[in-house]
Amino acid sequence: MADTRPRTLLGVVQAVREQGPLVQCITNHVASSLTANTLLAAGAAPAMVDIRGEAASFASVAGALLVNVGTPHAEQQDAAVEAAEAAVAAGTPWVLDPVAVGGLPVRTALARKVAAMSPTVVRGNASEVLGLAGMTAGGRGVDSTDRADTAVEAARILIAAGAAAVAISGRVDVIVDGKGVSHLTGGHPLLTRVTGTGCALGALVAACCAVTPDPGAAALAASWWMSASAEVAAARATGPGSFAVALLDAIATIDELELTARLRLP
Amino acid sequence: MADTRPRTLLGVVQAVREQGPLVQCITNHVASSLTANTLLAAGAAPAMVDIRGEAASFASVAGALLVNVGTPHAEQQDAAVEAAEAAVAAGTPWVLDPVAVGGLPVRTALARKVAAMSPTVVRGNASEVLGLAGMTAGGRGVDSTDRADTAVEAARILIAAGAAAVAISGRVDVIVDGKGVSHLTGGHPLLTRVTGTGCALGALVAACCAVTPDPGAAALAASWWMSASAEVAAARATGPGSFAVALLDAIATIDELELTARLRLP
Amino acid sequence: MADTRPRTLLGVVQAVREQGPLVQCITNHVASSLTANTLLAAGAAPAMVDIRGEAASFASVAGALLVNVGTPHAEQQDAAVEAAEAAVAAGTPWVLDPVAVGGLPVRTALARKVAAMSPTVVRGNASEVLGLAGMTAGGRGVDSTDRADTAVEAARILIAAGAAAVAISGRVDVIVDGKGVSHLTGGHPLLTRVTGTGCALGALVAACCAVTPDPGAAALAASWWMSASAEVAAARATGPGSFAVALLDAIATIDELELTARLRLP
Repeated sequence: MADTRPRTLLGVVQAVREQGPLVQCITNHVASSLTANTLLAAGAAPAMVDIRGEAASFASVAGALLVNVGTPHAEQQDAAVEAAEAAVAAGTPWVLDPVAVGGLPVRTALARKVAAMSPTVVRGNASEVLGLAGMTAGGRGVDSTDRADTAVEAARILIAAGAAAVAISGRVDVIVDGKGVSHLTGGHPLLTRVTGTGCALGALVAACCAVTPDPGAAALAASWWMSASAEVAAARATGPGSFAVALLDAIATIDELELTARLRLP
Repeated sequence: MADTRPRTLLGVVQAVREQGPLVQCITNHVASSLTANTLLAAGAAPAMVDIRGEAASFASVAGALLVNVGTPHAEQQDAAVEAAEAAVAAGTPWVLDPVAVGGLPVRTALARKVAAMSPTVVRGNASEVLGLAGMTAGGRGVDSTDRADTAVEAARILIAAGAAAVAISGRVDVIVDGKGVSHLTGGHPLLTRVTGTGCALGALVAACCAVTPDPGAAALAASWWMSASAEVAAARATGPGSFAVALLDAIATIDELELTARLRLP
Repeated sequence: MADTRPRTLLGVVQAVREQGPLVQCITNHVASSLTANTLLAAGAAPAMVDIRGEAASFASVAGALLVNVGTPHAEQQDAAVEAAEAAVAAGTPWVLDPVAVGGLPVRTALARKVAAMSPTVVRGNASEVLGLAGMTAGGRGVDSTDRADTAVEAARILIAAGAAAVAISGRVDVIVDGKGVSHLTGGHPLLTRVTGTGCALGALVAACCAVTPDPGAAALAASWWMSASAEVAAARATGPGSFAVALLDAIATIDELELTARLRLP
């Protein structure tokens, strides 16, 4: 399993805040603003370079790349493929977020095409990971209908096919890499009442991949950062609107003590 | 006129919260995030499936469909047509939001094309409803320059052409269906200072259509839910930014007592 | 240099609030919501008309036009060119925001093409202004790596090529027009932790251009309005999420006294 020592994971968070990695995002139009704001809150620098003719050259200089297939219009599809190819060629770590993959044919074909290019991390909910691995037709859009643990076998298939790690988000987050399986509990149900929090987590995983060579640790650190921030935010929120605002504040301001107190690896 | 009994309308709100209908949104890139967050706050499940090759199959399984023509790029135009056709074939209720229709040729042609496919509800401001019915060249973008009442004749034309109900948003909301005309007062001027609140209302109407077979009651319940939430939010807000946040909180948390106290059907 | 008298600049702010100019925005999908909300907070009326066949006719009736090349998909590229041409023909003031121009070829070609059409104001950070003028390959996406002052020479090149004024955003804002160079200090570092604040400023410059024939004064008034509002917002914020909310509130509610107290023209 991934290196789960608090010191290692804190080091990843600190490195993102100190180094401010440049994270290229090819993502859906619903989550793009929250995604960029999450990266900025974390101290990273987002760049939404998602068109043909620009995506590849940018991916070769970015600190990390996110490919999210949530609204895969034709131009974004081309950009996703060219960027993933360039990332692999340049050694840029990159994250694939297979939003609603499984039953929907266009995104499923695109996600499987880029999944074959050895993503550093695949991040999705259980049904999306299952759908990407061809083990189910997927659920109702972005809602996960399968528990994270059931997708571990699918994650192993994706790793055998080239992914370095798979992060399965859910009530319990499950991170699978070549070394084993890690579990993380925490977060808050309000995360499911704000659009794009999963997509934003994918971007945060990418930011973490830019500062550590251990994809499992990157996925774990990002999931922990998001979950702990959600817990802090929920305590201040009076509904999903104020929760989204407080979440960005918490990502930016949560300190080592608060993070450490909220690390739950069962 | 639509069934305006508080008990009926409260039943619609409760059903959305309990059943969590899956609402497919083909909408503009400005309002997509607020639209999804409004649906999530209401307890519904948004899915922004808006590309060719995916939109039709999703529309046949979704609980409801929203077609909003606010930024109708070519791919979305195709997706809107294929989704509306599939919704009609599958019996999925669907809402047409004719944003800024009237003077702008591309969206006007698209909106008129899908308006001929018997939408469950058309929701717009007075100039948009007039524009869709061919009675005026429309106003200044999304600003309504005509009072809602003047659009009742246009609404009747749209109903004669196949729409089951028309919701005309304004200072007074006017809901027209085959049975008559209902009026609803309330809301708050800050609704006009936040982008996409009208678009989000269109999505909320769609969510309500998913849980009741009465389109007029669905439009009325959604308009009431939004207006009452806006009143609650305005009392907590210090400007349009905090109003938007409080609006989502209120949509999620407003209870039956608060809703009922704010139902004004003159 | 531009007319920097407080009375002149306050007059611009008041005129936007009173006249509510219609501002057409062709902008990136990340910033579109914040951009529209900034215009609404300022009292202006945004219209995101950004497709072929609609952009030109709208530009000829709008109060001002914004062309932002942040995510220049093919349809938006065509719309940008047709809208800029129509704006010039109709005498509609228009603002060019050359997001990340310099190293990225598609947007750089597009921005240079429309820059040749005599924009009323070019607004960007120093590396973008340098990149547009062909003086550097640009920085890391939207992050400025050059101080605003170094771009003054580039601004003069753009003015010689037809721009009426250039606003270089940074820790010190520098406004260059045919009459000279003005400096404005203020703002807050949290502006760099929220995505799209620079893009939203570009739209605010456009709104100001709609109400005054002096492009330098428009750029100065908008930069001042944004900076002063950011200072007010930062005092209320606990992080970047709450700052973004408070920024919109402040743009809407800041009064003449607060504005005047925060006008710093060194």
